[in-house]
Amino acid sequence: MRKLLVMSNKGGVGKTTVAVNLSLLLSEENPTGLLDIDLHGPDAPRLLGLQKTEIKTQKHKLVPVKFNPNLYVMSLDFLIDKNRAVMWRGPLKTKAIQQLINDVLWPELDFLVIDLPPGTGDELITIMQMMRNSGSIIVSTSQAVSVEDAKRVINMSRSFDIPIIGLIENMSGEIFGSGKVEELAEKENIAFLGRLSLDKTVSNSLETGKPFILNKGTKSAKEFENITKNIKKMIKGAMD
Amino acid sequence: MRKLLVMSNKGGVGKTTVAVNLSLLLSEENPTGLLDIDLHGPDAPRLLGLQKTEIKTQKHKLVPVKFNPNLYVMSLDFLIDKNRAVMWRGPLKTKAIQQLINDVLWPELDFLVIDLPPGTGDELITIMQMMRNSGSIIVSTSQAVSVEDAKRVINMSRSFDIPIIGLIENMSGEIFGSGKVEELAEKENIAFLGRLSLDKTVSNSLETGKPFILNKGTKSAKEFENITKNIKKMIKGAMD
Repeated sequence: MRKLLVMSNKGGVGKTTVAVNLSLLLSEENPTGLLDIDLHGPDAPRLLGLQKTEIKTQKHKLVPVKFNPNLYVMSLDFLIDKNRAVMWRGPLKTKAIQQLINDVLWPELDFLVIDLPPGTGDELITIMQMMRNSGSIIVSTSQAVSVEDAKRVINMSRSFDIPIIGLIENMSGEIFGSGKVEELAEKENIAFLGRLSLDKTVSNSLETGKPFILNKGTKSAKEFENITKNIKKMIKGAMD
Repeated sequence: MRKLLVMSNKGGVGKTTVAVNLSLLLSEENPTGLLDIDLHGPDAPRLLGLQKTEIKTQKHKLVPVKFNPNLYVMSLDFLIDKNRAVMWRGPLKTKAIQQLINDVLWPELDFLVIDLPPGTGDELITIMQMMRNSGSIIVSTSQAVSVEDAKRVINMSRSFDIPIIGLIENMSGEIFGSGKVEELAEKENIAFLGRLSLDKTVSNSLETGKPFILNKGTKSAKEFENITKNIKKMIKGAMD
Protein backbone atom coordinates (compact mmCIF):
# COMPACT_ATOMS: atom_id res chain seq x y z
CA MET A 1 0.00 0.00 0.00
CA ARG A 2 1.24 3.44 -0.92
CA LYS A 3 0.51 6.42 1.23
CA LEU A 4 -0.07 9.65 -0.64
CA LEU A 5 0.29 12.63 1.67
CA VAL A 6 -1.70 15.61 0.41
CA MET A 7 -0.06 18.68 1.93
CA SER A 8 0.03 22.44 1.95
CA ASN A 9 1.44 24.94 4.37
CA LYS A 10 -1.29 27.49 3.83
CA GLY A 11 -4.87 26.46 4.51
CA GLY A 12 -7.68 27.20 2.09
CA VAL A 13 -5.76 26.25 -1.03
CA GLY A 14 -7.88 23.19 -1.78
CA LYS A 15 -5.95 20.41 -0.10
CA THR A 16 -9.12 18.56 0.88
CA THR A 17 -10.65 19.03 -2.56
CA VAL A 18 -7.56 17.39 -4.04
CA ALA A 19 -7.48 14.55 -1.49
CA VAL A 20 -11.16 13.67 -1.90
CA ASN A 21 -11.28 13.81 -5.68
CA LEU A 22 -7.95 12.02 -6.04
CA SER A 23 -9.12 9.15 -3.84
CA LEU A 24 -12.34 8.88 -5.86
CA LEU A 25 -10.50 8.74 -9.17
CA LEU A 26 -7.95 6.24 -7.89
CA SER A 27 -10.77 4.04 -6.59
CA GLU A 28 -12.05 3.62 -10.16
CA GLU A 29 -9.15 1.23 -10.76
CA ASN A 30 -7.65 0.41 -7.37
CA PRO A 31 -8.84 -0.31 -3.84
CA THR A 32 -8.24 3.02 -2.14
CA GLY A 33 -8.53 4.51 1.34
CA LEU A 34 -9.04 8.15 2.27
CA LEU A 35 -7.73 9.14 5.69
CA ASP A 36 -8.57 12.65 6.86
CA ILE A 37 -6.43 13.76 9.79
CA ASP A 38 -6.71 17.50 9.27
CA LEU A 39 -7.03 18.56 12.89
CA HIS A 40 -7.86 22.14 11.97
CA GLY A 41 -10.93 21.20 9.99
CA PRO A 42 -11.53 17.57 9.06
CA ASP A 43 -13.73 18.44 6.10
CA ALA A 44 -13.37 15.43 3.81
CA PRO A 45 -16.64 13.82 5.04
CA ARG A 46 -18.59 16.97 4.21
CA LEU A 47 -17.27 16.92 0.65
CA LEU A 48 -18.52 13.36 0.32
CA GLY A 49 -21.86 13.99 2.01
CA LEU A 50 -20.78 11.81 4.95
CA GLN A 51 -20.71 14.43 7.70
CA LYS A 52 -23.35 12.82 9.88
CA THR A 53 -21.91 9.35 9.72
CA GLU A 54 -21.51 7.33 12.88
CA ILE A 55 -18.74 4.82 12.82
CA LYS A 56 -18.33 1.48 14.47
CA THR A 57 -15.43 -0.12 16.23
CA GLN A 58 -14.45 -3.75 16.04
CA LYS A 59 -12.01 -5.23 18.55
CA HIS A 60 -11.01 -1.66 19.52
CA LYS A 61 -10.25 -0.78 15.94
CA LEU A 62 -12.08 1.83 13.87
CA VAL A 63 -14.15 0.51 10.97
CA PRO A 64 -13.83 2.79 7.92
CA VAL A 65 -16.90 3.91 6.00
CA LYS A 66 -17.41 2.24 2.64
CA PHE A 67 -18.15 5.05 0.18
CA ASN A 68 -18.14 2.84 -2.88
CA PRO A 69 -17.02 -0.76 -3.44
CA ASN A 70 -13.43 0.43 -3.87
CA LEU A 71 -13.21 3.45 -1.56
CA TYR A 72 -13.04 3.45 2.24
CA VAL A 73 -13.04 6.60 4.33
CA MET A 74 -11.88 7.45 7.85
CA SER A 75 -11.86 10.93 9.29
CA LEU A 76 -11.10 12.67 12.53
CA ASP A 77 -14.49 14.30 11.98
CA PHE A 78 -16.16 10.96 12.79
CA LEU A 79 -14.55 11.06 16.24
CA ILE A 80 -15.35 14.57 17.41
CA ASP A 81 -18.26 16.57 18.71
CA LYS A 82 -19.18 18.82 15.80
CA ASN A 83 -20.15 21.95 17.67
CA ARG A 84 -17.29 22.25 20.09
CA ALA A 85 -14.00 23.79 19.11
CA VAL A 86 -11.38 21.11 18.73
CA MET A 87 -9.11 22.43 21.43
CA TRP A 88 -6.75 19.62 22.09
CA ARG A 89 -3.51 19.89 23.87
CA GLY A 90 -0.54 18.16 22.28
CA PRO A 91 -0.64 14.71 23.91
CA LEU A 92 -4.35 14.18 23.16
CA LYS A 93 -3.86 15.29 19.60
CA THR A 94 -0.92 12.96 19.17
CA LYS A 95 -3.02 10.12 20.54
CA ALA A 96 -5.91 10.82 18.15
CA ILE A 97 -3.54 10.97 15.20
CA GLN A 98 -1.83 7.76 16.26
CA GLN A 99 -5.17 6.01 16.54
CA LEU A 100 -6.18 7.16 13.08
CA ILE A 101 -2.88 6.12 11.59
CA ASN A 102 -2.53 2.78 13.37
CA ASP A 103 -5.95 1.54 14.44
CA VAL A 104 -8.16 1.56 11.37
CA LEU A 105 -9.39 -1.73 9.91
CA TRP A 106 -8.55 -0.97 6.29
CA PRO A 107 -9.14 -3.76 3.78
CA GLU A 108 -6.31 -4.56 1.34
CA LEU A 109 -5.55 -1.23 -0.34
CA ASP A 110 -3.34 -0.11 -3.19
CA PHE A 111 -3.45 3.54 -2.16
CA LEU A 112 -4.12 5.42 1.05
CA VAL A 113 -4.69 9.12 0.36
CA ILE A 114 -4.04 11.15 3.51
CA ASP A 115 -5.40 14.66 4.01
CA LEU A 116 -2.87 16.23 6.41
CA PRO A 117 -3.31 19.34 8.51
CA PRO A 118 -1.82 22.42 6.88
CA GLY A 119 1.39 23.86 8.27
CA THR A 120 4.78 22.60 9.24
CA GLY A 121 4.36 22.55 13.01
CA ASP A 122 4.29 19.99 15.77
CA GLU A 123 1.39 18.01 14.39
CA LEU A 124 3.08 17.62 11.05
CA ILE A 125 6.36 16.56 12.60
CA THR A 126 4.55 13.91 14.63
CA ILE A 127 2.75 12.64 11.55
CA MET A 128 5.75 12.67 9.25
CA GLN A 129 7.68 10.60 11.77
CA MET A 130 4.98 7.93 11.65
CA MET A 131 4.87 7.67 7.89
CA ARG A 132 6.49 4.82 6.05
CA ASN A 133 6.26 4.15 2.35
CA SER A 134 4.75 7.50 1.59
CA GLY A 135 5.10 10.25 -0.99
CA SER A 136 3.90 13.83 -0.82
CA ILE A 137 1.62 15.78 -3.13
CA ILE A 138 1.85 19.51 -2.46
CA VAL A 139 -1.05 21.83 -3.27
CA SER A 140 -0.64 25.57 -3.76
CA THR A 141 -2.31 28.48 -5.48
CA SER A 142 -0.25 30.72 -7.75
CA GLN A 143 -0.24 33.51 -5.15
CA ALA A 144 3.23 34.52 -3.99
CA VAL A 145 2.25 33.91 -0.36
CA SER A 146 1.12 30.38 -1.11
CA VAL A 147 4.10 29.54 -3.31
CA GLU A 148 6.46 30.66 -0.56
CA ASP A 149 4.60 28.44 1.88
CA ALA A 150 4.78 25.55 -0.57
CA LYS A 151 8.55 25.93 -0.55
CA ARG A 152 8.52 25.35 3.20
CA VAL A 153 6.54 22.14 2.74
CA ILE A 154 8.99 20.96 0.08
CA ASN A 155 11.85 21.52 2.54
CA MET A 156 9.98 19.68 5.28
CA SER A 157 9.17 16.72 3.04
CA ARG A 158 12.83 16.52 2.05
CA SER A 159 14.07 16.76 5.61
CA PHE A 160 11.96 13.69 6.48
CA ASP A 161 13.17 11.85 3.36
CA ILE A 162 9.66 11.61 2.00
CA PRO A 163 9.78 11.59 -1.80
CA ILE A 164 7.81 14.40 -3.42
CA ILE A 165 5.43 13.12 -6.08
CA GLY A 166 4.78 16.63 -7.34
CA LEU A 167 3.06 20.01 -7.11
CA ILE A 168 -0.51 20.94 -8.06
CA GLU A 169 -1.64 24.48 -8.85
CA ASN A 170 -5.15 24.98 -7.56
CA MET A 171 -7.58 27.89 -8.06
CA SER A 172 -5.67 28.74 -11.18
CA GLY A 173 -7.00 31.69 -13.15
CA GLU A 174 -7.54 35.41 -13.28
CA ILE A 175 -8.21 36.08 -9.60
CA PHE A 176 -5.36 34.23 -7.92
CA GLY A 177 -3.10 34.09 -10.96
CA SER A 178 -1.43 31.11 -12.62
CA GLY A 179 2.00 29.81 -13.54
CA LYS A 180 3.93 30.34 -10.33
CA VAL A 181 3.54 26.77 -9.07
CA GLU A 182 4.93 25.34 -12.28
CA GLU A 183 7.85 27.78 -11.99
CA LEU A 184 8.52 26.61 -8.45
CA ALA A 185 8.38 22.97 -9.56
CA GLU A 186 10.95 23.60 -12.27
CA LYS A 187 13.21 25.52 -9.93
CA GLU A 188 13.06 22.77 -7.31
CA ASN A 189 13.34 20.00 -9.88
CA ILE A 190 10.01 18.49 -8.87
CA ALA A 191 7.23 17.24 -11.16
CA PHE A 192 4.44 19.69 -11.94
CA LEU A 193 1.25 17.62 -11.85
CA GLY A 194 -1.09 20.14 -13.45
CA ARG A 195 -3.51 22.92 -12.68
CA LEU A 196 -7.11 22.98 -11.54
CA SER A 197 -8.93 26.19 -12.42
CA LEU A 198 -10.88 28.37 -10.01
CA ASP A 199 -14.38 27.42 -11.09
CA LYS A 200 -17.88 27.33 -9.70
CA THR A 201 -18.09 23.63 -10.59
CA VAL A 202 -15.47 22.97 -7.93
CA SER A 203 -16.54 25.47 -5.28
CA ASN A 204 -20.21 24.48 -5.55
CA SER A 205 -19.34 20.83 -5.09
CA LEU A 206 -18.01 21.67 -1.63
CA GLU A 207 -21.51 22.73 -0.64
CA THR A 208 -23.48 19.86 -2.13
CA GLY A 209 -21.53 16.87 -0.87
CA LYS A 210 -21.09 15.66 -4.43
CA PRO A 211 -17.46 15.77 -5.55
CA PHE A 212 -16.97 17.58 -8.86
CA ILE A 213 -15.03 14.69 -10.34
CA LEU A 214 -18.25 12.68 -10.48
CA ASN A 215 -19.62 15.07 -13.13
CA LYS A 216 -17.60 13.60 -15.96
CA GLY A 217 -16.90 15.79 -18.94
CA THR A 218 -16.69 19.18 -17.21
CA LYS A 219 -13.55 21.25 -17.70
CA SER A 220 -12.70 20.79 -14.00
CA ALA A 221 -13.14 17.02 -14.19
CA LYS A 222 -10.90 16.83 -17.24
CA GLU A 223 -8.22 18.94 -15.59
CA PHE A 224 -8.27 16.74 -12.53
CA GLU A 225 -8.24 13.50 -14.52
CA ASN A 226 -5.05 14.78 -16.11
CA ILE A 227 -3.57 15.56 -12.70
CA THR A 228 -4.42 12.07 -11.43
CA LYS A 229 -2.87 10.49 -14.51
CA ASN A 230 0.33 12.42 -13.79
CA ILE A 231 0.27 11.38 -10.14
CA LYS A 232 0.05 7.72 -11.08
CA LYS A 233 2.91 8.13 -13.49
CA MET A 234 5.05 9.97 -10.96
CA ILE A 235 4.37 7.49 -8.15
CA LYS A 236 6.32 4.97 -10.14
CA GLY A 237 9.15 7.44 -10.68
CA ALA A 238 9.30 8.88 -7.20
CA MET A 239 8.39 5.94 -4.96
CA ASP A 240 9.64 2.83 -6.73
CA MET B 1 -4.69 49.92 24.28
CA ARG B 2 -7.17 47.56 22.75
CA LYS B 3 -6.12 44.28 21.24
CA LEU B 4 -8.11 43.20 18.21
CA LEU B 5 -7.61 39.50 17.53
CA VAL B 6 -8.18 38.67 13.88
CA MET B 7 -9.09 35.00 13.78
CA SER B 8 -10.30 32.17 11.58
CA ASN B 9 -10.26 28.44 11.98
CA LYS B 10 -9.72 27.72 8.31
CA GLY B 11 -6.66 29.17 6.64
CA GLY B 12 -6.85 30.95 3.30
CA VAL B 13 -9.97 32.93 4.08
CA GLY B 14 -8.20 36.29 4.13
CA LYS B 15 -7.37 36.74 7.80
CA THR B 16 -4.10 38.51 7.01
CA THR B 17 -5.73 40.70 4.37
CA VAL B 18 -8.22 41.84 6.99
CA ALA B 19 -5.57 42.39 9.69
CA VAL B 20 -3.27 44.42 7.45
CA ASN B 21 -5.92 46.62 5.90
CA LEU B 22 -7.73 47.12 9.19
CA SER B 23 -4.54 48.30 10.90
CA LEU B 24 -3.86 50.70 8.02
CA LEU B 25 -7.32 52.21 8.20
CA LEU B 26 -7.25 52.49 11.97
CA SER B 27 -3.86 54.23 11.76
CA GLU B 28 -5.46 57.07 9.80
CA GLU B 29 -6.96 58.30 13.05
CA ASN B 30 -5.26 56.39 15.87
CA PRO B 31 -1.76 55.18 16.75
CA THR B 32 -1.97 51.53 15.81
CA GLY B 33 0.20 48.45 15.99
CA LEU B 34 0.06 45.34 13.80
CA LEU B 35 1.39 42.17 15.40
CA ASP B 36 1.65 39.12 13.13
CA ILE B 37 2.04 35.89 15.07
CA ASP B 38 0.67 33.53 12.44
CA LEU B 39 3.13 30.68 12.91
CA HIS B 40 1.88 28.84 9.84
CA GLY B 41 2.71 31.69 7.49
CA PRO B 42 3.54 35.11 8.88
CA ASP B 43 2.55 36.92 5.70
CA ALA B 44 1.64 40.39 6.92
CA PRO B 45 5.08 41.86 6.01
CA ARG B 46 4.72 40.64 2.45
CA LEU B 47 1.37 42.39 2.10
CA LEU B 48 3.04 45.61 3.22
CA GLY B 49 6.15 45.17 1.09
CA LEU B 50 8.24 44.68 4.24
CA GLN B 51 9.34 41.10 3.73
CA LYS B 52 13.05 41.80 3.61
CA THR B 53 13.11 44.01 6.68
CA GLU B 54 15.74 43.48 9.33
CA ILE B 55 14.73 44.52 12.79
CA LYS B 56 16.68 45.85 15.70
CA THR B 57 16.60 45.08 19.35
CA GLN B 58 16.99 47.58 22.15
CA LYS B 59 17.68 46.44 25.69
CA HIS B 60 16.65 42.90 24.65
CA LYS B 61 13.32 44.13 23.32
CA LEU B 62 12.22 44.02 19.70
CA VAL B 63 11.86 47.38 17.94
CA PRO B 64 8.79 47.42 15.69
CA VAL B 65 8.99 48.70 12.11
CA LYS B 66 7.43 52.10 11.52
CA PHE B 67 5.28 51.73 8.41
CA ASN B 68 3.80 55.20 8.60
CA PRO B 69 3.81 57.83 11.36
CA ASN B 70 0.88 56.09 13.03
CA LEU B 71 1.44 52.40 12.23
CA TYR B 72 4.03 50.09 13.76
CA VAL B 73 4.56 46.51 12.64
CA MET B 74 6.06 43.43 14.25
CA SER B 75 5.98 39.96 12.72
CA LEU B 76 7.26 36.51 13.40
CA ASP B 77 8.51 36.71 9.82
CA PHE B 78 11.18 39.18 10.93
CA LEU B 79 12.59 36.56 13.29
CA ILE B 80 12.82 33.52 11.05
CA ASP B 81 14.95 32.19 8.26
CA LYS B 82 12.75 32.53 5.18
CA ASN B 83 13.71 29.41 3.32
CA ARG B 84 13.54 26.85 6.06
CA ALA B 85 10.30 25.26 7.12
CA VAL B 86 9.22 26.63 10.48
CA MET B 87 9.28 23.34 12.29
CA TRP B 88 9.15 24.27 15.90
CA ARG B 89 8.27 22.00 18.71
CA GLY B 90 5.79 23.33 21.25
CA PRO B 91 8.10 24.92 23.84
CA LEU B 92 10.08 26.90 21.26
CA LYS B 93 6.89 28.08 19.62
CA THR B 94 5.46 29.16 22.92
CA LYS B 95 8.66 31.07 23.64
CA ALA B 96 8.56 32.90 20.30
CA ILE B 97 4.92 33.82 20.80
CA GLN B 98 5.60 35.02 24.33
CA GLN B 99 8.44 37.18 23.10
CA LEU B 100 6.28 38.73 20.41
CA ILE B 101 3.46 39.37 22.85
CA ASN B 102 5.56 40.66 25.74
CA ASP B 103 8.87 41.99 24.44
CA VAL B 104 8.06 44.50 21.73
CA LEU B 105 8.80 48.19 22.27
CA TRP B 106 5.47 49.53 21.10
CA PRO B 107 4.92 53.26 21.43
CA GLU B 108 1.65 54.44 23.01
CA LEU B 109 -1.04 52.75 20.94
CA ASP B 110 -4.82 52.94 20.77
CA PHE B 111 -5.15 49.66 18.90
CA LEU B 112 -3.04 46.56 18.47
CA VAL B 113 -4.33 44.41 15.62
CA ILE B 114 -3.12 40.83 16.01
CA ASP B 115 -3.00 38.37 13.14
CA LEU B 116 -3.38 34.99 14.88
CA PRO B 117 -2.57 31.57 13.49
CA PRO B 118 -5.63 29.81 12.09
CA GLY B 119 -7.10 26.94 14.03
CA THR B 120 -8.19 26.22 17.55
CA GLY B 121 -5.24 24.13 18.67
CA ASP B 122 -2.42 24.38 21.19
CA GLU B 123 -0.95 27.57 19.80
CA LEU B 124 -4.27 29.33 20.00
CA ILE B 125 -4.90 28.17 23.54
CA THR B 126 -1.49 29.48 24.59
CA ILE B 127 -2.15 32.82 22.94
CA MET B 128 -5.70 33.23 24.21
CA GLN B 129 -4.49 32.66 27.74
CA MET B 130 -2.04 35.54 27.37
CA MET B 131 -4.58 38.01 26.06
CA ARG B 132 -6.02 40.73 28.23
CA ASN B 133 -8.29 43.53 27.10
CA SER B 134 -8.89 41.95 23.75
CA GLY B 135 -11.81 41.37 21.41
CA SER B 136 -12.04 38.99 18.46
CA ILE B 137 -12.86 39.63 14.83
CA ILE B 138 -13.68 36.42 13.01
CA VAL B 139 -13.15 36.07 9.26
CA SER B 140 -14.93 33.47 7.13
CA THR B 141 -16.00 32.86 3.57
CA SER B 142 -19.60 31.93 2.85
CA GLN B 143 -18.63 28.31 2.16
CA ALA B 144 -20.31 25.80 4.44
CA VAL B 145 -16.93 24.38 5.46
CA SER B 146 -15.65 27.79 6.48
CA VAL B 147 -18.83 28.81 8.30
CA GLU B 148 -18.72 25.61 10.32
CA ASP B 149 -15.12 26.36 11.22
CA ALA B 150 -16.07 29.91 12.19
CA LYS B 151 -18.55 28.44 14.65
CA ARG B 152 -15.68 26.65 16.37
CA VAL B 153 -13.76 29.91 16.70
CA ILE B 154 -16.83 31.60 18.18
CA ASN B 155 -17.06 28.85 20.76
CA MET B 156 -13.37 29.13 21.55
CA SER B 157 -13.51 32.90 21.93
CA ARG B 158 -16.46 32.52 24.27
CA SER B 159 -14.79 29.83 26.32
CA PHE B 160 -11.89 32.23 26.98
CA ASP B 161 -14.29 35.08 27.79
CA ILE B 162 -12.97 37.16 24.92
CA PRO B 163 -15.75 39.40 23.63
CA ILE B 164 -16.54 38.91 19.96
CA ILE B 165 -16.54 42.19 18.03
CA GLY B 166 -18.13 40.55 15.02
CA LEU B 167 -17.91 38.45 11.85
CA ILE B 168 -16.63 39.42 8.40
CA GLU B 169 -17.58 37.64 5.19
CA ASN B 170 -14.59 37.59 2.87
CA MET B 171 -14.33 36.49 -0.78
CA SER B 172 -18.03 37.13 -1.09
CA GLY B 173 -19.52 36.54 -4.55
CA GLU B 174 -20.43 34.02 -7.17
CA ILE B 175 -17.59 31.55 -6.70
CA PHE B 176 -17.61 31.01 -2.94
CA GLY B 177 -21.17 32.25 -2.36
CA SER B 178 -22.46 34.93 -0.01
CA GLY B 179 -24.87 35.38 2.86
CA LYS B 180 -23.96 32.46 5.12
CA VAL B 181 -21.71 34.46 7.43
CA GLU B 182 -24.42 37.01 8.09
CA GLU B 183 -26.82 34.12 8.81
CA LEU B 184 -24.36 32.68 11.31
CA ALA B 185 -23.92 36.08 12.97
CA GLU B 186 -27.67 36.42 13.42
CA LYS B 187 -28.04 32.90 14.73
CA GLU B 188 -25.23 33.42 17.25
CA ASN B 189 -26.36 36.93 18.14
CA ILE B 190 -23.06 38.47 17.05
CA ALA B 191 -22.56 41.63 14.97
CA PHE B 192 -22.12 41.14 11.24
CA LEU B 193 -19.41 43.60 10.24
CA GLY B 194 -19.85 43.42 6.47
CA ARG B 195 -18.63 41.66 3.37
CA LEU B 196 -15.57 42.05 1.20
CA SER B 197 -16.07 40.77 -2.34
CA LEU B 198 -13.79 38.32 -4.14
CA ASP B 199 -12.08 40.76 -6.46
CA LYS B 200 -8.84 41.08 -8.38
CA THR B 201 -8.20 44.41 -6.64
CA VAL B 202 -7.75 42.50 -3.40
CA SER B 203 -5.95 39.40 -4.69
CA ASN B 204 -3.53 41.44 -6.81
CA SER B 205 -2.63 43.59 -3.84
CA LEU B 206 -1.26 40.49 -2.11
CA GLU B 207 1.33 40.20 -4.88
CA THR B 208 2.40 43.82 -5.12
CA GLY B 209 3.00 44.65 -1.47
CA LYS B 210 0.56 47.56 -1.75
CA PRO B 211 -2.57 47.02 0.37
CA PHE B 212 -5.78 47.49 -1.58
CA ILE B 213 -7.16 49.92 0.98
CA LEU B 214 -4.60 52.50 -0.18
CA ASN B 215 -6.38 52.73 -3.54
CA LYS B 216 -9.20 54.89 -2.26
CA GLY B 217 -12.45 54.82 -4.20
CA THR B 218 -12.40 51.23 -5.43
CA LYS B 219 -15.37 49.00 -4.62
CA SER B 220 -13.13 46.87 -2.37
CA ALA B 221 -11.81 49.91 -0.48
CA LYS B 222 -15.35 51.18 0.11
CA GLU B 223 -16.51 47.79 1.34
CA PHE B 224 -13.63 47.61 3.75
CA GLU B 225 -14.05 51.17 4.98
CA ASN B 226 -17.59 50.21 5.90
CA ILE B 227 -16.33 47.12 7.74
CA THR B 228 -13.80 49.20 9.69
CA LYS B 229 -16.48 51.74 10.61
CA ASN B 230 -18.58 48.89 11.99
CA ILE B 231 -15.62 47.49 13.92
CA LYS B 232 -15.00 50.84 15.61
CA LYS B 233 -18.67 51.08 16.50
CA MET B 234 -18.79 47.55 17.87
CA ILE B 235 -15.58 47.91 19.89
CA LYS B 236 -17.44 50.35 22.06
CA GLY B 237 -20.37 47.99 22.40
CA ALA B 238 -18.44 44.77 22.92
CA MET B 239 -15.37 45.88 24.85
CA ASP B 240 -16.43 48.85 26.97
